[in-house]
Amino acid sequence: MTAALIDGKAHAAKLKARLIEETARLKAEHGLVPGLATVLVGNDPASEVYVRNKNKTAEALGFKSVHHHLAETASEAEVLDLVRALNADPSVHGILVQMPLPKQIREQAVLDVLDPAKDVDALTPTNAGLLLSGRAKLVSCTPAGMMILLKETIGAVAGLEALVIGRSLLFGKPAALLLQAANATVTMAHSKTRDLAEVCRRADILVAAIGKPEFVRGDWVKPGATVIDVGINRVPAAEGKTKLVGDVAFAEAVERAGHITPVPGGVGAMTIICLMRNTLIAAAALAGLAVPSV
Amino acid sequence: MTAALIDGKAHAAKLKARLIEETARLKAEHGLVPGLATVLVGNDPASEVYVRNKNKTAEALGFKSVHHHLAETASEAEVLDLVRALNADPSVHGILVQMPLPKQIREQAVLDVLDPAKDVDALTPTNAGLLLSGRAKLVSCTPAGMMILLKETIGAVAGLEALVIGRSLLFGKPAALLLQAANATVTMAHSKTRDLAEVCRRADILVAAIGKPEFVRGDWVKPGATVIDVGINRVPAAEGKTKLVGDVAFAEAVERAGHITPVPGGVGAMTIICLMRNTLIAAAALAGLAVPSV
Repeated sequence: MTAALIDGKAHAAKLKARLIEETARLKAEHGLVPGLATVLVGNDPASEVYVRNKNKTAEALGFKSVHHHLAETASEAEVLDLVRALNADPSVHGILVQMPLPKQIREQAVLDVLDPAKDVDALTPTNAGLLLSGRAKLVSCTPAGMMILLKETIGAVAGLEALVIGRSLLFGKPAALLLQAANATVTMAHSKTRDLAEVCRRADILVAAIGKPEFVRGDWVKPGATVIDVGINRVPAAEGKTKLVGDVAFAEAVERAGHITPVPGGVGAMTIICLMRNTLIAAAALAGLAVPSV
Repeated sequence: MTAALIDGKAHAAKLKARLIEETARLKAEHGLVPGLATVLVGNDPASEVYVRNKNKTAEALGFKSVHHHLAETASEAEVLDLVRALNADPSVHGILVQMPLPKQIREQAVLDVLDPAKDVDALTPTNAGLLLSGRAKLVSCTPAGMMILLKETIGAVAGLEALVIGRSLLFGKPAALLLQAANATVTMAHSKTRDLAEVCRRADILVAAIGKPEFVRGDWVKPGATVIDVGINRVPAAEGKTKLVGDVAFAEAVERAGHITPVPGGVGAMTIICLMRNTLIAAAALAGLAVPSV
């Protein structure tokens, strides 16, 4: 058996179409234009690409998009002042501070200043707490994208055994809580887990987010399971080139899984569009409107 | 084999002795007296007993203890005003609003007003978020008590398989996150979990918090496992009397487990003293002192 591929790009395109429609409606009915502000500190080439893609996507949806670029040598006080100014700017509904930050700037200090209502990456303690409390408004983008893929691919996950490998605040922990809220029985595994292969084999939904290329082998996959591969690892390829691979050994796993996300083009393809979804939700909430169900 | 009993009262007494010592030190060295304020709304007899025990324990430790009793008919605004006044009172370091509240008062509204720095039940979104972020200052009392019992009974839990049945904000979710932070591999089960017996049998640490008398049977327990029974259920007994039982069928489980908490006198015996620990930690933090490692 060969698994059905979960086409992240196609699902992202569907969500994008819904967001364009909803953005037009908010503008027509309420004169509201969702505004996304991005903040980049320094000149990391990968971060520059990410931020540019976010601004471009925002504009394609009809959002207002503003970008702030600070020097690599910017002080923490400068970054905090900028975040405070964006907190106070009524035309900005989502603030995205691109991580990682240069080492003189404490990530935590930035998150402690950022207005939770505009925290579209959902990294502030308040948004983490609302998620744990079952009252989440803004949810971390890649886990939210994963839940959309699961819903549109396998439907309800209630009662299924889900395994999340990796426990970051950006992905693993919110992913586990979202799966739990959807009534899956969730196991949280990590680098200290014993006999991970055996733990994997009991999972109906296997989610890998550990940043180790092809770490999860095919025979760890329960036959028919749904595999969500969150890893994006660049590894050497033939003729001195490189290629991207996930945390799952795709060629092996595709023979056992029922559904599997490719890398690239899987769950990663949902992240930016889910950021836009958060920005639209934040804009509606800040304007006191009903939160659109997109 | 018969399991070793985990004597919650003995562990609570040890913690109490440490807290008395630390309270005396804070007073002698810094003139700081930890202050606990309890708020009871209405006349529920069980709640009256709980609150009285909290005040008595606080006084026994050398804390300042104040109690506020509002009528069953108190408005939400009255409760919120009282919480705001306690937030502002520098002699109060911990605020305990006894739940459940009469139905005209929204629990959530109270928690949204309560100062997270004085939230000794750790129910505000901020404290939930700090827990999820791995930066917890104040942790929900019964899960914190569970971790102390585990540490003092079986030592490190890293790499062990832990199962938490129940997903409340007061116990199940923080218990799962604390076990995960201690490097256990944690599964979160609940009413929608399929084949719970089988899921239980893989647990080295089995934690039941579901409020169903003797629901977890002896043959669900992995031989040698540590069983933490968080349930306290009153059931009919012989001669028209009643008795307290846990969520685990104790007489059966004690024959299979390696360690087990009795009910009563198990993990429940740790709750009030952990509330005092939180109050002492809050007092030190609010005074800008190093947080005591008690």
